[in-house]
Amino acid sequence: MRVIADICVVPLTGRVSVRKEVARAHAILAETGLETHLHGYGTNIEGEWDEVFAALKRIHTDLHADGVPRLSTTIRLGTRTDKTAGIEAKIAAVHSELK
Amino acid sequence: MRVIADICVVPLTGRVSVRKEVARAHAILAETGLETHLHGYGTNIEGEWDEVFAALKRIHTDLHADGVPRLSTTIRLGTRTDKTAGIEAKIAAVHSELK
Amino acid sequence: MRVIADICVVPLTGRVSVRKEVARAHAILAETGLETHLHGYGTNIEGEWDEVFAALKRIHTDLHADGVPRLSTTIRLGTRTDKTAGIEAKIAAVHSELK
Amino acid sequence: MRVIADICVVPLTGRVSVRKEVARAHAILAETGLETHLHGYGTNIEGEWDEVFAALKRIHTDLHADGVPRLSTTIRLGTRTDKTAGIEAKIAAVHSELK
Repeated sequence: MRVIADICVVPLTGRVSVRKEVARAHAILAETGLETHLHGYGTNIEGEWDEVFAALKRIHTDLHADGVPRLSTTIRLGTRTDKTAGIEAKIAAVHSELK
Repeated sequence: MRVIADICVVPLTGRVSVRKEVARAHAILAETGLETHLHGYGTNIEGEWDEVFAALKRIHTDLHADGVPRLSTTIRLGTRTDKTAGIEAKIAAVHSELK
Repeated sequence: MRVIADICVVPLTGRVSVRKEVARAHAILAETGLETHLHGYGTNIEGEWDEVFAALKRIHTDLHADGVPRLSTTIRLGTRTDKTAGIEAKIAAVHSELK
Repeated sequence: MRVIADICVVPLTGRVSVRKEVARAHAILAETGLETHLHGYGTNIEGEWDEVFAALKRIHTDLHADGVPRLSTTIRLGTRTDKTAGIEAKIAAVHSELK
């Protein structure tokens, strides 16, 4: 099952800046080899369900292992059986509609 | 790793009413035997990471098998290493603070 | 325009515990007089669009005024024109479907 | 109060394809003149609180006026008082940390 997801990790570290932990989370997604795209409030990722969720689990286990005591993550998650449409195709479809 | 999650499944079925599919999604969570709580815009669920995400996967595979062509799900997801605090404890802590 | 919303405020305070700020956010929603329901990962609120969003803005302005330097909030938000269905009716519809 | 938001509108139209409505929602955000960025699961927008939320309200009122009976929107929303950091700066900070 293919999934397009959008993942935003908010670490509660005891510091206001979370740049380091957010970069680590994005790097873990990027290291999967799956297609990822960093934007201003999260990271898009596209791939097989089990691979995407293994990466998400690794974000939580690795950041906790690095000493982050608390993580609050939000995910948007889409699956469909009527066609395969990846991230690029979705964006292209909207741009095409806008013309 | 314990997780508290809040899951909201939006099925795109070709109909405006999604009551049947939302009930099915909630039932799948409830069938896990994990602690669940249905609210007005999703379901709280608390348990071990792998069990919670196995249930989420089953929602997507079962609803697609039932003929739903497209699902858009949102998840809030919290893990922490500094203490164990379940759903009930979180709610109680807020109520206690409000007094 | 009526709206059913689900609001989850994550304050980045420099402390790991956010109980006090979450309670304050919930109290601001409850003080609107609108129907609210606290659950394990947010608060449901139902009312007119402008009232709901005035309350949301007050959460951000009041918590910042109280010294919280950073807030990351997530919202689910539903509007519909085909019928009026409040939080209680939505939950009842799912429970009725589950029987 | 400056806000960085990420908005994802899911229209329930009675059709599975939502490309037209999603493009309309993105166009309304872009017409504000605020900085926007379309990604694979939503649109980033950055601006003054009241302008961002006026645009969001217009998405709901305009799409309902166009005949969409039901909308389910999710928003991530960040405000901070410790510094001003726009979308571009946030992305640059993560890229810089990744090096």
